[in-house]
Parts: sequence; C-alpha cells; structure tokens
Amino acid sequence: MTRNASIDPSARSVDLTPPCVILCEPQLGENIGTAARAMANFGLVDLRIVNPRDGWPSERARAAASRADHVIDGVRVFASVEDAIADLSFVYATTARSREVPKPVRGPDEAAEAATRLAAQGASVGYLFGRERWGLNNDEVALADEIVTLPVDPDFASLNIAQAVLVCAYEWRVKANRGALPFRLDEVANPPARKEDLVRLFEHLESALDGVTFFRPPEKRPSMVRNLRNILQKAALTDQEVKTLRGVIAALERRPTRPCEDQGEDNSDGPSAESE
Amino acid sequence: MTRNASIDPSARSVDLTPPCVILCEPQLGENIGTAARAMANFGLVDLRIVNPRDGWPSERARAAASRADHVIDGVRVFASVEDAIADLSFVYATTARSREVPKPVRGPDEAAEAATRLAAQGASVGYLFGRERWGLNNDEVALADEIVTLPVDPDFASLNIAQAVLVCAYEWRVKANRGALPFRLDEVANPPARKEDLVRLFEHLESALDGVTFFRPPEKRPSMVRNLRNILQKAALTDQEVKTLRGVIAALERRPTRPCEDQGEDNSDGPSAESE
Repeated sequence: MTRNASIDPSARSVDLTPPCVILCEPQLGENIGTAARAMANFGLVDLRIVNPRDGWPSERARAAASRADHVIDGVRVFASVEDAIADLSFVYATTARSREVPKPVRGPDEAAEAATRLAAQGASVGYLFGRERWGLNNDEVALADEIVTLPVDPDFASLNIAQAVLVCAYEWRVKANRGALPFRLDEVANPPARKEDLVRLFEHLESALDGVTFFRPPEKRPSMVRNLRNILQKAALTDQEVKTLRGVIAALERRPTRPCEDQGEDNSDGPSAESE
Repeated sequence: MTRNASIDPSARSVDLTPPCVILCEPQLGENIGTAARAMANFGLVDLRIVNPRDGWPSERARAAASRADHVIDGVRVFASVEDAIADLSFVYATTARSREVPKPVRGPDEAAEAATRLAAQGASVGYLFGRERWGLNNDEVALADEIVTLPVDPDFASLNIAQAVLVCAYEWRVKANRGALPFRLDEVANPPARKEDLVRLFEHLESALDGVTFFRPPEKRPSMVRNLRNILQKAALTDQEVKTLRGVIAALERRPTRPCEDQGEDNSDGPSAESE
C-alpha cells in the first residue's frame, strides 16, 4: 500500500496500447473484479464481458477490484463473443485443454511478444477467457487466431480466471516495457567502494588479526589472507559498507578509532560506526 | 477442470527441487489457501507460515486452496522468519516498495533464473512474502539475499499475496522446464500439406475462377493468381485443410466431385468435404 518514494520512470512508460480482456459468460462478480485488479496491476484497462450471469453493473465486482475503479467503470457488456471482438484484429483464446484444432498454441510469454509486435503495427489485440466451469466452447475458439495456455503442472492445471488474466497481463507488461521494475538497487546512491578503500579494509583486518596471532602457522599467512580478501570481495561492498566494517574491526580491536595508514591524505574516509 | 486427453510429457518433467514459499504473519486463511493453489499450479509444494494470525490448521485456507491439499497438508508453522528459513541457502524477500538497502532488486524472471541455477547446485531456495497490510519489515528483509519485486504499473502496485506468489511460481516453472506447455498444436497429427497438394488446390481454385471469368482483364491474371497463392500460403494449410478447401471449391462449382488432374496416381487425396 505504501507508495514508493522514488519510482523508476521507465516502469511507467509503456508506449503501446495494451490488449483488451474479454470474459466470456463469467458467473461470479468476484471473478470479474479480481480480473480487473490483475489487469490494473500491469496497466491493462479495456475489459469486456459477454453475458455476465449476474448482470452488470456488479457491486461484488467493484468490491473485489480493490480500487481498480478505472477498469470497472470502463467495462463494456456484449451479447456475443463476435460483438465483443468485432473491432479487434488479433484474438487469443485462452484454454487449459488441448483442442482438436490445428491452431498454434502459445505460452503467455510468446503471446505477449507477438501482442506487443502487433500493437506496434497498430493492431488491436484481445485475450479471450472462458467460463469458470468449462472455459470456451469450440465455436468460440474458432473465432480466435491462436490459443494461449499456461505452463502449469498438468496434474494441477485448474487456474482461477483472475490468475490466468494476471499471468497474461504480467507477460504483456514484461514484453511491452522490457520488464522495467518500479525500483532497482540505487547504484548511484550505493556505488561500489573504490579498490583503494577496499585494500585499506583488507590491511586493517589483517593487521588486527596479526595482533592476535590469527595467522598460524606463519607460512600459511599468504593463502589465509587471500581467502579473506576473496570472501570480502564477494560481498561487493559499497563505500559506506567499507566504513562500517572498518568500524567493526576497530571496535573488536578495542580501539574506538584507528590511525590512518594513508600517505598524508585527509581522514574523511576513516572508520566510523554506522547505524541503520 | 477437464483433463487433457494427451499431455506433453515434457510439461511434467521438472528435475529441480522447487523453491519454498514463506508467508510472514498472514492474516487471512483465504490468502494462505489461494497462495497454496497458485503454488500447486506451477509445481511448488513447500509452504511455510510464520505466525498466522488466525492459527493453524485453517479450514478457510483449505477451502480456498481448491484441492491443493498436498500443499496444505504439508504446511509447517514457525515462530520466526529465522526459524522458517533456517535450512535454506538462498532467500528472496518480495517487496513492492523501494528499500534503503544496498541489496540487488530482481524481477520474477531474473529471480527464477537464478533460483533454478541454485537448485541445480543443490541449494535450497525460498521466497519470503510479507503481511497483507504492510509487507515485510526491514529486519526481515535483512535476512534475505536479494529482493524480488514485480514489474507492476507503479500507479496500481497493490498485489494480493496469492497473485505475487503466482507470478513467482509461474516464472520458476518457465525457467525450470523451459516453459514446456501441457499441450501444443499436434504437429504430427496436423502435418503441413505437401506442396504438390497445395499446388493442386491453387490450380483447382484458379480453374474454377477461370470458369466464371473472374480474372479480368486477362493480362492481370498472372498477378491475381500470385496474390491468391500468397494468401493461401499464409494459412499454412494442413493436408486435411487442403482437402476441405477443395471440397468447398467443388461445391461452389456445383459439382460434388472434381476429376483428378494428376498423372495417373491414385485418387485418395482427392477432394472431400470435412465436418468438425
């Protein structure tokens, strides 16, 4: 619920018109609502319903949509699949069952890839979802260009409609904006430490360990040092993390600060304790 | 609900141990159940719960799991995240919010890619999900190796727990068995037509159109023929579909069958009407 302080702008920018979702004769308003919410999560807005069993509008749908009101408000109801897809140029029929039809079967990733390509050409694309109980009939599948099915465990293949919508919508967004995430590790605010500072950390640790004769027998010191340095390298430490660890070592040495070993430079990168 | 008559065996074979899912202090049994169902859809089985608010076992969870009983029966309850992840080697913290922690942030696809790599090395991987209201706290995130977030629309980022579990589980299965679908277009049962038969279809259509002087003016015939042939090529017709279309042309010609033009071969590939 909490808003992110900073959103990566690339996560917002989707230039393509997203596909529409057509629900064929859904029985439960809740499923319409959760499908609308799943669409909104990934930027889809155009929801069409063919003959909803309990009519429209539906307060249960709105409640289940968890504030995806813009999708619910835009819903259009149709009397047939033909009417619902009339203005579209490419339609995927989603089905969990093998069909005796010679129609290409795609995963949600392949379908989304093609859907973004079609959208870039200006074609309107739709995903057609069937009834809760028994999906789409063969006449409805015959209206579609291709079939989409999910790579489920065949032994537990029953997906709720909103879940099927969610995966298709997720894949569409991944393909449409190359998976841009709302946030990433802030590489600018967390630059990796300079090697100079890392080497000082190594030397600080090694001199502290020399003080307690950790390196035994002495001839093993070089390989033990290499091991420790490799371990610390793996952590890909930031500047601030190097300072924190130098503070840790100084504290374990029981000296609150540690004389700098650098050649007359300023001490601003010296050890300091850090708290979160 | 209907079982597929024939399942592609590659959709079943996942050699890797799937990751476990840890739900941290979930409030609603329904969410535990729908998360369990989402796991089962993509072959995940190990569900761990830290301090479920309404206790465990939960009949609401079992009902919401829609027969994912094997996941519900295997649930283990823990008193702390530390206990729940003790036997794991790599943990993803899922979060919808940017964190002030220098920890890599991955999309579900990148995380799944790494998770399958780790599983192949024998490492146990877990995905940690937070509370319905406010997710994970920073101490819990600090127990994780990396952060996973979904490429949602930043303006509608609120996902239900089961939906977040679903996308992570989906991506894991895509990566773990290379997106093998339970079924594909049966290329063996639906082989593309031989070019010889396709050319006969072309010639049949063209001679029928000659009979009604469709090609006008006559000098345009060659380019019109090329257009028609290109249109029919785009349909990537199967053997049976070629036969169906020859039956269609014969019917429009008002002759139920058409003499074969081949050079004394058998007539078994002659026109025949097809019904679905």
